[in-house]
Amino acid sequence: MIIQNVRITPVAVPDIPLLNCKGVHQSVFLRSVIELVTDTGIVGLGETYGAKRTLAGLRESADALIGLDPFHLNDLRSRVVQALPAGGGVNAPTAVADHQLVDVVSSAFEVACMDIQGKLLDRSVSDLLGGAVRRQVPFSAYLFFKFGRLAGHAEDDRWGEVRTPDALVEEARTLYRENGFKSLKLKGGVLEPDLEIETMFKLREAFPHHPLRIDPNGVWTVDTAIRIGKALDGVLEYLEDPVLGIDGMAAVAREVPMPLATNLAVIEFEHLPDSIAKNAVQVVLSDHHYWGGLRASKHLARLCQAFGLGLSMHSNSHLGISLAAMTHLAASTPNLNYDCDTHYPWMDTDVVTGGKRAFRDGALTVPDGPGLGVELDHDKLTELNTLYEASGVTDRDDTNEIQKYIPGYVRKVPRW
Amino acid sequence: MIIQNVRITPVAVPDIPLLNCKGVHQSVFLRSVIELVTDTGIVGLGETYGAKRTLAGLRESADALIGLDPFHLNDLRSRVVQALPAGGGVNAPTAVADHQLVDVVSSAFEVACMDIQGKLLDRSVSDLLGGAVRRQVPFSAYLFFKFGRLAGHAEDDRWGEVRTPDALVEEARTLYRENGFKSLKLKGGVLEPDLEIETMFKLREAFPHHPLRIDPNGVWTVDTAIRIGKALDGVLEYLEDPVLGIDGMAAVAREVPMPLATNLAVIEFEHLPDSIAKNAVQVVLSDHHYWGGLRASKHLARLCQAFGLGLSMHSNSHLGISLAAMTHLAASTPNLNYDCDTHYPWMDTDVVTGGKRAFRDGALTVPDGPGLGVELDHDKLTELNTLYEASGVTDRDDTNEIQKYIPGYVRKVPRW
Repeated sequence: MIIQNVRITPVAVPDIPLLNCKGVHQSVFLRSVIELVTDTGIVGLGETYGAKRTLAGLRESADALIGLDPFHLNDLRSRVVQALPAGGGVNAPTAVADHQLVDVVSSAFEVACMDIQGKLLDRSVSDLLGGAVRRQVPFSAYLFFKFGRLAGHAEDDRWGEVRTPDALVEEARTLYRENGFKSLKLKGGVLEPDLEIETMFKLREAFPHHPLRIDPNGVWTVDTAIRIGKALDGVLEYLEDPVLGIDGMAAVAREVPMPLATNLAVIEFEHLPDSIAKNAVQVVLSDHHYWGGLRASKHLARLCQAFGLGLSMHSNSHLGISLAAMTHLAASTPNLNYDCDTHYPWMDTDVVTGGKRAFRDGALTVPDGPGLGVELDHDKLTELNTLYEASGVTDRDDTNEIQKYIPGYVRKVPRW
Repeated sequence: MIIQNVRITPVAVPDIPLLNCKGVHQSVFLRSVIELVTDTGIVGLGETYGAKRTLAGLRESADALIGLDPFHLNDLRSRVVQALPAGGGVNAPTAVADHQLVDVVSSAFEVACMDIQGKLLDRSVSDLLGGAVRRQVPFSAYLFFKFGRLAGHAEDDRWGEVRTPDALVEEARTLYRENGFKSLKLKGGVLEPDLEIETMFKLREAFPHHPLRIDPNGVWTVDTAIRIGKALDGVLEYLEDPVLGIDGMAAVAREVPMPLATNLAVIEFEHLPDSIAKNAVQVVLSDHHYWGGLRASKHLARLCQAFGLGLSMHSNSHLGISLAAMTHLAASTPNLNYDCDTHYPWMDTDVVTGGKRAFRDGALTVPDGPGLGVELDHDKLTELNTLYEASGVTDRDDTNEIQKYIPGYVRKVPRW
């Protein structure tokens, strides 16, 4: 059995104006949907970033996959390495952390290959990863400050403006009511630090038993991070990326009482030795999209266990193919014992048949498979690809976007 | 598909009097042969140690495997953990390094489960591990000093006595002629250190282009190890376990010019943080029999890559089931880039159909599968099980054995 055809379809998915330290989400987020078709007619699905560099990398590697045995995942990576001699990262040059193009591209294709394997075997991807140790995979509520409406729109979206601690708590109540999430994460770095501290205390009051997290994406100084970390003693299960870089994280870790988590300071295996030597990070946020795939994420999990590191899961805006892959991975990883992040509830549509998945008690049931256990809704794929072509958006730029709302907005790292 | 039947058969395999720092090999070595039988009639094979503690652990866990889905390898481990609440190690209390019983038992069963998976899929185990990156897996010649004949025997075996540097070189020539090995490893710690240095120089002279290793199993003092390491500068690709313990290895590593390898100081994931912090070991000798299985060995490989550690493979005396598993693992591990150790050439028989495998140019071709690509020779299994019952040997004790040759022999650690 070999790969005979590779289809890569960029899609744009309607989004809402969620705020972060860089700016605000654009009116659409971009993803690439991958279909690998075998000579036996099995179609394996994958999903990853849809911005320019990733899309180009996927397309440059596509031909190299023709003839690949979908079990030969070592060979898959070698072919991608050959096809992308330039290497490099997928993010914009101004990004504070970048993901290796080779890891991103081979991961997307690996997921599709494992989907093929599962479909061939009539087995779920979680079975291929050692079997689910939990049938329900818990996710955390991903809380955002936000504008009331997209730039140029006349009316607020259903969430309205969320730019105060009280409004954020209301948003959390709604997300909780609709999804049952059992832990809460705030995308911080948006309001003044004291307002974000106030927000966390108000969340604690409103949700006395929910584990809480805040993630300012590294926009604080070390001094600010230490002050906030001390102020939130007893409130947070972990503090995510308060500052940038391993040395900065280590400086904060020495002074604050809670574990530090990261998806910015440690984003590839080769970052771990320095981070471990400096005890910079206590919880690694895995993400199969850039750690090299589902199997690489299992390696990461075992490494974290060996070094006494916690393990949680990072998310970008994504569709149901990635959601399924994340769920299978989390289900089959015994020491992934924090609720996973996901942007998924913020979206109203999906490219998988059956439409948007629902969380129950904050968790998703592991799809039964075969493979990922999801199928493409081709009409929806066409619709979202048409939106991609029509939108004119080919890259993510939250800073440019926020200037539509706040003329002259300047991104600062660190800001506070 | 579930496991319906578990067969564990201890076997004794005729051995010859190979010397090491503890004493001498007994007249037989012990292995356990595992057959897991599914409700669909597929039989998966595994092989591990045959000494008392392992055999007891396998038998105590056997019932817990009934009903297991052979894809659910996380569940497999959980069941073994449940079945062996006492935990503990597999080696004699006097052993200088011990392997966790849970790892050893679950590894043996994991290999058999992966054999089942492969047979179900008509795929090789190496395919299940990501695919072979090399079709030929190179092994090193494992050179031993030895007595000429087993205690109580009237005539020398075909190798005769090997207790001098020159005799060892002759042995190496024969092993090379018969198997084509492209690297040579000496089981040291047997002769006086200066004689072992002389042996390595004579090997270098006789085999100017072969990478060389020596492994005294930690029987040297730190001072002796440093002296020998310096003397063998430029001669060794690595020096294996010159002394015991992470601190001892670190002290040697600071002073000698070559990498240190180990299968004694670092034998489980939880040993790695200390070893890495102290730079005690530069090459980890993996061994799926005690690192927790084939998939755990892949995790180890990725961890070694992340930390810039070399990776090689350890061997005990073993049969063709383990040889197949080792070959599949090595074939599918890109950074396993040293020739693997194996005791296999010292044996004259095997429990797999087709009999003893032959090395060509020092390498084995990866079995095509399905699964491990080997089948049990049931007559041979019965014969070697009968020998097990008849031999009265139920544990390995090289020190007791050598007293049959050298009355009053006392084991010393360290000796020199």
